[in-house]
Amino acid sequence: MAENVWKTALTRIAPNLVSVRGFPLDQAVGQVNFGTMVYLLLRGELPSPREAAVMEAILVSSIDHGASPPSTLAARTVASTGASLSASVAAGVLSINRHHGGAIEACMELLSEGCRSVEGGALPSSVASDLVAVARSRKERIPGFGHRLHTSDPRAIRLLQVATTNEVAGVGVKLASEIAEKLSLALRRQMPLNVDGAIAALLVDLGFEPAVGNGFFLMARMPGLVAHVLEEKKRQKPMRRVSPTSHSYDGPPPRGFEEH
Amino acid sequence: MAENVWKTALTRIAPNLVSVRGFPLDQAVGQVNFGTMVYLLLRGELPSPREAAVMEAILVSSIDHGASPPSTLAARTVASTGASLSASVAAGVLSINRHHGGAIEACMELLSEGCRSVEGGALPSSVASDLVAVARSRKERIPGFGHRLHTSDPRAIRLLQVATTNEVAGVGVKLASEIAEKLSLALRRQMPLNVDGAIAALLVDLGFEPAVGNGFFLMARMPGLVAHVLEEKKRQKPMRRVSPTSHSYDGPPPRGFEEH
Amino acid sequence: MAENVWKTALTRIAPNLVSVRGFPLDQAVGQVNFGTMVYLLLRGELPSPREAAVMEAILVSSIDHGASPPSTLAARTVASTGASLSASVAAGVLSINRHHGGAIEACMELLSEGCRSVEGGALPSSVASDLVAVARSRKERIPGFGHRLHTSDPRAIRLLQVATTNEVAGVGVKLASEIAEKLSLALRRQMPLNVDGAIAALLVDLGFEPAVGNGFFLMARMPGLVAHVLEEKKRQKPMRRVSPTSHSYDGPPPRGFEEH
Amino acid sequence: MAENVWKTALTRIAPNLVSVRGFPLDQAVGQVNFGTMVYLLLRGELPSPREAAVMEAILVSSIDHGASPPSTLAARTVASTGASLSASVAAGVLSINRHHGGAIEACMELLSEGCRSVEGGALPSSVASDLVAVARSRKERIPGFGHRLHTSDPRAIRLLQVATTNEVAGVGVKLASEIAEKLSLALRRQMPLNVDGAIAALLVDLGFEPAVGNGFFLMARMPGLVAHVLEEKKRQKPMRRVSPTSHSYDGPPPRGFEEH
Repeated sequence: MAENVWKTALTRIAPNLVSVRGFPLDQAVGQVNFGTMVYLLLRGELPSPREAAVMEAILVSSIDHGASPPSTLAARTVASTGASLSASVAAGVLSINRHHGGAIEACMELLSEGCRSVEGGALPSSVASDLVAVARSRKERIPGFGHRLHTSDPRAIRLLQVATTNEVAGVGVKLASEIAEKLSLALRRQMPLNVDGAIAALLVDLGFEPAVGNGFFLMARMPGLVAHVLEEKKRQKPMRRVSPTSHSYDGPPPRGFEEH
Repeated sequence: MAENVWKTALTRIAPNLVSVRGFPLDQAVGQVNFGTMVYLLLRGELPSPREAAVMEAILVSSIDHGASPPSTLAARTVASTGASLSASVAAGVLSINRHHGGAIEACMELLSEGCRSVEGGALPSSVASDLVAVARSRKERIPGFGHRLHTSDPRAIRLLQVATTNEVAGVGVKLASEIAEKLSLALRRQMPLNVDGAIAALLVDLGFEPAVGNGFFLMARMPGLVAHVLEEKKRQKPMRRVSPTSHSYDGPPPRGFEEH
Repeated sequence: MAENVWKTALTRIAPNLVSVRGFPLDQAVGQVNFGTMVYLLLRGELPSPREAAVMEAILVSSIDHGASPPSTLAARTVASTGASLSASVAAGVLSINRHHGGAIEACMELLSEGCRSVEGGALPSSVASDLVAVARSRKERIPGFGHRLHTSDPRAIRLLQVATTNEVAGVGVKLASEIAEKLSLALRRQMPLNVDGAIAALLVDLGFEPAVGNGFFLMARMPGLVAHVLEEKKRQKPMRRVSPTSHSYDGPPPRGFEEH
Repeated sequence: MAENVWKTALTRIAPNLVSVRGFPLDQAVGQVNFGTMVYLLLRGELPSPREAAVMEAILVSSIDHGASPPSTLAARTVASTGASLSASVAAGVLSINRHHGGAIEACMELLSEGCRSVEGGALPSSVASDLVAVARSRKERIPGFGHRLHTSDPRAIRLLQVATTNEVAGVGVKLASEIAEKLSLALRRQMPLNVDGAIAALLVDLGFEPAVGNGFFLMARMPGLVAHVLEEKKRQKPMRRVSPTSHSYDGPPPRGFEEH
């Protein structure tokens, strides 16, 4: 019955054709980058080349964060029982929630609301001041600012530069910078924008809705989860105790892209 | 105790530093594409720019396959119960196994073994003939060839072109083409290389081990899974019956990249 | 460091000893039933024999609900890709949320609050009337009442009988019955307590907190999920389309316990 | 189309009726125990009361094993990120594989094959000797025997007693006992049947196929996983480091069922 046919606006499959949002997928292969296709899938339209560059930058910035995040530990713990690659990775995916990766979405909510105030005529600096004052009075942390390890998050700084260079930075980035400044003043210690906050600012300026926030973290982190599970299976014994703290890095020494 | 410190060679985290395989992640942001970083994470070294282009092409080629794959249906079914984005996507991830996405890994095994024979002096055409003969005598399908819908898979054709243009195509691509030809002759119908088989050929020529096969499918398909779950939550009622067959596309009409 | 030792009050493991909440697990084997141990694990104390009987009744009542629930469909869809038993069952587990199984928890919230009103001196019938009036004014469904298929849920009726016979039925059951009556009157059609609502009433009268609601559904449904996945692997081909509607039962004909 | 209707022999749903393998589920509620229904679901027929008692004993014996198994750690790690109860439990379920819980299935394979030899006329003691000799020559562990912590597993001993008392113990139990004896002699240290091995022996004597092995562990362990996740959410802070070794029990002191 016609009324039982459900609809999807993402991808059309027909004999010898796969098209995403109307564009033949085979034309995309080798012509546009992965970030372009992510934007197209989620938004329905192609990004400009500069927006596509910012998309790739966002995906690159969260590709891995080492052995200590719960997503890595859950994936490795499951892998150590003899689970398949996909089942192990799924345990990592299940760890991407409010407290892990969730700051992107929470910060997007906040910046999106701030942007609406700015559109309504408010000054970014006063919107930021208000946000900081409200959070302090409620004794709440502002998601996307500060880090338990990094006092200055190099990934965040670089993301803002990329957004600025590509002329994508707008009110979201402006607000994020103002909040970081006012928050550091109020708390009398550095509360820089972290990588989650920077991604949030860029996504808001790219026009994304907050509901996609966790999705970006999931897409970006997938290679990290796959790499950790493959390494676990290759280097470690089954059923080992996966300590969340007693691990160390034994990969290549520091090096830079300029040498390559 | 020192002996309890476990090792990882992937990512090093230190105050104000995140480095992947020795490269500062912030330097990568805005400078290299996502495919470069995937290669670096999995292989430990940077790809050449041409190899990086092939990596992006591979990731783009499997970004989504519409509403009917089991990964999409499982993710949407779980989403319809009120699950979070990550829990819904995890159900999709759990569906990437031997019979769905698994052809990449199975085809890589086969091509890798064939490559070793060629290195040992055998001719690609005779290696391909032998493979086809063995599979036929065992009445087994050769993974990576043929498709239940597409008689010619445009994504596969394009992937081989990209590999050739970028001078990445080697014995893996050669073998895959020979197998397709001999298989079609033997079965007297078109048994073209499909997208999984083309990815397998490219990954073999890029020097990857078969164990990463499912991982590539997982990384490539993540945006599709995220997009389907977000669409399910936005357009559909909870607890609906997610029919695997009665669905249709209502997105933008056919269009091409050249117009943009 | 001592401060990093985290605590658990559930189970103690020592050489040749496994004790649950202080009781040696080996003593429990063959002496107490599964429902007793579930109660002990979750509450910290043994149930009375009558409470234990009600626990078993609750677990039995939701052991399976056939092929159409999303948990069954997700588990079978994942199984059809070649996933392991545990990965397939996990997809079923991921489907137990607000809209599927979640009515237990939601109904417990409601009945628990009602019980507090009754303890504070209110009459059950007026508490029930208020609840129905509020829900109607908000145009909200009351969780645990009505069913899209069953006009009278035989499992719910039986559960209330078991609770009454075992002298476990208290204010929760009383309130649930009053709500069903008043709701049916208000809507002028049968809105009986369903199995989720009956479980909720019994759990409230057993003294459980609402937060365990989904947990009961998970424990009770596990055998159903395992049985469906094993049947899928045994009877069906890989990668089939798992229709949520076109299925039929071909097991043993109707029969009764009295004949056995 | 009729040919697209898929079949299931487990549960029939009709208006006001839920029947499992032909038996009305409401009749089962309050009349038979959970173990009876698990047997019925998986086998299609009712167990005898003595078989049902052994089923409950098996489910009770693996209900929890404290904080250190990977299933517990994975579930708690995911819970600490803010995941829902079902998503956290799913991570625990994903950990039930070859190296964790999998010994039941592997031991059932072995005992089932041994039983066939005994049916064919071989003596249990010589079948056991052969098994031990083969495993030693291959330097393989025999699944279901020995434990990294327990030199004598009290749960295993008790399970065999329950099987014997209920006249369920048969060739499976006989073989398991012989293997334990011969293995301990050969290795010159105690290699007792562990809880997984005892469950395997009982399931074989109850007539189950090895493919259900992991399923029994999943069903039995579900309450433990639910209890650990609920405790994690209640007692612990989000994003804590879940150490697999630095934990201790702070629940009720040792006590016995006889006092209750």
